[in-house]
Amino acid sequence: MNTFGRIFRLTDFGETHGGAIGGVVDGCPAGLTIDFDFIRSELERRATSGHYHSTRRSEPDHVEFLSGIHDGKTLGSPIAFLIRNRDVVVNEEKQRVLKPSHASYTYMKKYHAPDNRFCGRASARQTACRVVAGAIAKLILRTYAIDISASIIEEGVPSGEGDTFGAKVKGVISNLPPGLGEPVYDKFHARLGYAMLSINACKGFEIGKGFDAAKMCGSQYNDLQNSDFSFVSNHDGGVQGGITNGQDVAFNVAFKPVPSIQQEQSCIDFEGRPIQYTGSDRNDLCVTPRVLPIVEAMAALVTVDFLFIQQQPLS
Amino acid sequence: MNTFGRIFRLTDFGETHGGAIGGVVDGCPAGLTIDFDFIRSELERRATSGHYHSTRRSEPDHVEFLSGIHDGKTLGSPIAFLIRNRDVVVNEEKQRVLKPSHASYTYMKKYHAPDNRFCGRASARQTACRVVAGAIAKLILRTYAIDISASIIEEGVPSGEGDTFGAKVKGVISNLPPGLGEPVYDKFHARLGYAMLSINACKGFEIGKGFDAAKMCGSQYNDLQNSDFSFVSNHDGGVQGGITNGQDVAFNVAFKPVPSIQQEQSCIDFEGRPIQYTGSDRNDLCVTPRVLPIVEAMAALVTVDFLFIQQQPLS
Amino acid sequence: MNTFGRIFRLTDFGETHGGAIGGVVDGCPAGLTIDFDFIRSELERRATSGHYHSTRRSEPDHVEFLSGIHDGKTLGSPIAFLIRNRDVVVNEEKQRVLKPSHASYTYMKKYHAPDNRFCGRASARQTACRVVAGAIAKLILRTYAIDISASIIEEGVPSGEGDTFGAKVKGVISNLPPGLGEPVYDKFHARLGYAMLSINACKGFEIGKGFDAAKMCGSQYNDLQNSDFSFVSNHDGGVQGGITNGQDVAFNVAFKPVPSIQQEQSCIDFEGRPIQYTGSDRNDLCVTPRVLPIVEAMAALVTVDFLFIQQQPLS
Amino acid sequence: MNTFGRIFRLTDFGETHGGAIGGVVDGCPAGLTIDFDFIRSELERRATSGHYHSTRRSEPDHVEFLSGIHDGKTLGSPIAFLIRNRDVVVNEEKQRVLKPSHASYTYMKKYHAPDNRFCGRASARQTACRVVAGAIAKLILRTYAIDISASIIEEGVPSGEGDTFGAKVKGVISNLPPGLGEPVYDKFHARLGYAMLSINACKGFEIGKGFDAAKMCGSQYNDLQNSDFSFVSNHDGGVQGGITNGQDVAFNVAFKPVPSIQQEQSCIDFEGRPIQYTGSDRNDLCVTPRVLPIVEAMAALVTVDFLFIQQQPLS
Repeated sequence: MNTFGRIFRLTDFGETHGGAIGGVVDGCPAGLTIDFDFIRSELERRATSGHYHSTRRSEPDHVEFLSGIHDGKTLGSPIAFLIRNRDVVVNEEKQRVLKPSHASYTYMKKYHAPDNRFCGRASARQTACRVVAGAIAKLILRTYAIDISASIIEEGVPSGEGDTFGAKVKGVISNLPPGLGEPVYDKFHARLGYAMLSINACKGFEIGKGFDAAKMCGSQYNDLQNSDFSFVSNHDGGVQGGITNGQDVAFNVAFKPVPSIQQEQSCIDFEGRPIQYTGSDRNDLCVTPRVLPIVEAMAALVTVDFLFIQQQPLS
Repeated sequence: MNTFGRIFRLTDFGETHGGAIGGVVDGCPAGLTIDFDFIRSELERRATSGHYHSTRRSEPDHVEFLSGIHDGKTLGSPIAFLIRNRDVVVNEEKQRVLKPSHASYTYMKKYHAPDNRFCGRASARQTACRVVAGAIAKLILRTYAIDISASIIEEGVPSGEGDTFGAKVKGVISNLPPGLGEPVYDKFHARLGYAMLSINACKGFEIGKGFDAAKMCGSQYNDLQNSDFSFVSNHDGGVQGGITNGQDVAFNVAFKPVPSIQQEQSCIDFEGRPIQYTGSDRNDLCVTPRVLPIVEAMAALVTVDFLFIQQQPLS
Repeated sequence: MNTFGRIFRLTDFGETHGGAIGGVVDGCPAGLTIDFDFIRSELERRATSGHYHSTRRSEPDHVEFLSGIHDGKTLGSPIAFLIRNRDVVVNEEKQRVLKPSHASYTYMKKYHAPDNRFCGRASARQTACRVVAGAIAKLILRTYAIDISASIIEEGVPSGEGDTFGAKVKGVISNLPPGLGEPVYDKFHARLGYAMLSINACKGFEIGKGFDAAKMCGSQYNDLQNSDFSFVSNHDGGVQGGITNGQDVAFNVAFKPVPSIQQEQSCIDFEGRPIQYTGSDRNDLCVTPRVLPIVEAMAALVTVDFLFIQQQPLS
Repeated sequence: MNTFGRIFRLTDFGETHGGAIGGVVDGCPAGLTIDFDFIRSELERRATSGHYHSTRRSEPDHVEFLSGIHDGKTLGSPIAFLIRNRDVVVNEEKQRVLKPSHASYTYMKKYHAPDNRFCGRASARQTACRVVAGAIAKLILRTYAIDISASIIEEGVPSGEGDTFGAKVKGVISNLPPGLGEPVYDKFHARLGYAMLSINACKGFEIGKGFDAAKMCGSQYNDLQNSDFSFVSNHDGGVQGGITNGQDVAFNVAFKPVPSIQQEQSCIDFEGRPIQYTGSDRNDLCVTPRVLPIVEAMAALVTVDFLFIQQQPLS
């Protein structure tokens, strides 16, 4: 179950402590020009940041494409790519800690993981694969003049030195044609929410007015239309009945605080023994700003998939 | 794309203006005792309500099972069911209105629908199929002693006579085993959010602290564990790294106001001509309380699917 | 796993001893005119026959469409249909026989079926659903001027009174565009073979020269092309590298003898006790000619699916 | 559509003229010991041969595992692997030939391939990925004591110097539990046939008596059972009603002659211009014996998938 998408699909692989991460993008049409600099710049956005609370750690990932591209153009066959992991010095003691609000405990229960080395699939490092595939999706969307952007609209307030905090991110997909999305289960925003909620640390998704809509009444909320079919408002966030209406698809995504805080916490280890644990200073204090290209990448994957799913009229 | 689920799957069909709605539940094991009274009572919860703002309209749907059940027990083959539609008197003029914040316009663009009669797939009536399939899923969950419940935690304030309002609903899945959910894309809460966002009028989903998590810092948020592996708090809402940890899965769902208000609105018709439109008094003022069994049904479908997806250990 | 197809999909249901059989066709575009007489005539081809060895039993199935069609045209929503079963007088004793070369024993092992009443999903009656969905697929293929036909090319020789026999059927899909099929796993003939082998009593599939190709040498076999790209021969049966080349797709399907013979056989029952068993005279002596519309139906489902899967060029 | 399997799934990638081929195996349980020597020996079977008509060309492919394995055991996460391509000297002129009974023409029509370099996905080299994934599947089957073997039972007769020929291969899956396979579309032999027909050059598949069954009568054919449920014969090839009965699953696969013959043929190029073409002496004269591990690999993928699909009984 490491595949995302129906027609335009990413299958990815790799753990932090293994040799490499990477993925296979299946369903990309032949003839697309691959802008390698763009892919690199998207990875760069994910890896480093001038933002004050991001770590200094540079992570200049090199992506190697293995297939599906010839002379800079796609062939229509699967596009495989690879990012090598570098050797990391492992702190043996910390491998034994059930890190709070991490995946340590759940991997222990699901996979019988004996320590954190076996939880490498839960690492945020995996999101680099989303960004590479998302960049390819964005190149496809360029040919439709569809644009996607994400920005920070709210951040938590850390309570002390070394504390981490959450963030709320806004995403906008603009210039979408009306008619994308399927009526019942595969509503446009249902697949979009599924995509966002699959990102590490994501705890919420809303479209248009979202949770505020629950406090509103119909006479305020309804999006009326003018005689040229344009809309007076966009409370629905560009999706009605699960299908895009041509307005901007606007959505928000909530991220919890990064669980690794640089403060001592009373934890337990994989055997249930008490242990005092302080997170590494190599971790970010917030998922932002690095999460922005990931949000955009997942939105791009969903959008391209719906464009390709879109039922062709009868011949 | 009218199928939900991977192993335990509902495929449903039917429009408001057609002969019937119904569905096929595939992947139900043989030997399950079907409690028909329970299914009926779940449909009853969806159909009527003592709540002041629900319509008087009774809708005593009769569900007919066509296959997959013999002597009250499942056979392991697909369970098909049918709910007949009753004749409805159609207001011809209203069929031409692009109802605001409905699916009229998007169906016009996607399917070239010439009027609202062609938008019957977007009707809330379809959710009866979710409730039937969800009731079967609940019967399976009973054998695991897993319980699901939904309740209203907030409602909007209508601005005047005939106005409608939104609502926020809380769902809880209790007594779930740890280890359900898949690490990357099919995180437990990602599929759960996908399921909820597919319900008519849903505009938001959050798990655990959800959007409030975005305002928190890590030292407050982290769910610490005791030496017996029990948790001190449940800010994560029972899911960490996408996988259940054995605590209650707690989530909230936001619903927008019912778009059909009993007040005159300035609308347009399918040709873009201005028209004054007042919604029927047969519509509900809020999706609650009828939406509660639907929320529970979708949560049940997701939970059963994950139980059946759960990878078996090697022989 | 009662669904066939990727984009154009049939999900079907129903047992011989239940109330009804039927199915849901998902992925049919809006605006297709449904020729109900044609569907009826296809069902008629499956049900009765002037052929000498088919039973007299008439089986004038009535198909009821429940959704997805309005004023004789498809809506783009799922097309559900239903065929009621008639009451059958059950021979209690025969229900206990492990019928040889039937599904009795395998259903006993898989589903813990206590007698043949629980094997109703294995009955040839299910194929009526394939014919209905296949007829809809044929209506789509008409708009592409693609034609499908099946004919008998060989039949077995019964050894005595009441004996049954096998048959070899040839199928031809003509006027197919080149380019259908996917390069590796979803080769056109691989999906076609999968479809044919799923038909009751089917034991073999070959395309083009098929098994004779194993005896040939390359200098005889290769399909050379003229300067106008036309082919000198069609040993490959219209598919090369898994993709159609525009020639007729020609294939053969092998069916074993109908297992119910009207002769006494030494069998066992569900408890392993010896029992003498003679099949009913209500059974056919051969799957032909009734199987012909079923072969065509499955070929039509595969062809439509590939037409809809066909990757659209970039915008 | 470069994925095979439902629960145990191979997604593969790579062209002959690209940097590498490889694949991702998803759905392998945690804790399986990977026998790297066995995988290497399976690749060796595919690559070289003492058989007189196989080419001298050695192809000692080195497979690199990138993820999913730690200390020689699987983690439960996707297992990615990579086989680098070596530089090949390309004969520019031959790249322009529409090679007869190859994929040249169909790729030209489907992907607008301008020459054979763009047909690298159709190369038999891809089958190395099947063998690697199949070897992992075989390691899983070892834990169930299920065995798979393939052997040559017939070969064509070449008509002259440099000619190629076809072959018929027999496969046997032994010690399978009864109950595998799904009743209607995903019959065990339907998925098995689908898998075999997806192998390059395959033109036919049959199970048990196969095409000979079409010539038989029921009184000869039926597989009777003894009181201990053992079978008197195995004409059905171990599958009845689509479900395994515990006997050996025995099947045959037909392969056409290798299309590249070392004799001059009158061909055309990608523009339709006549050209005399002689195949390289680096090609095999027959798909056997190299195809044997590929047949076994595909049978192993299908068998593991069905083992994992097998519905668990209710708790």
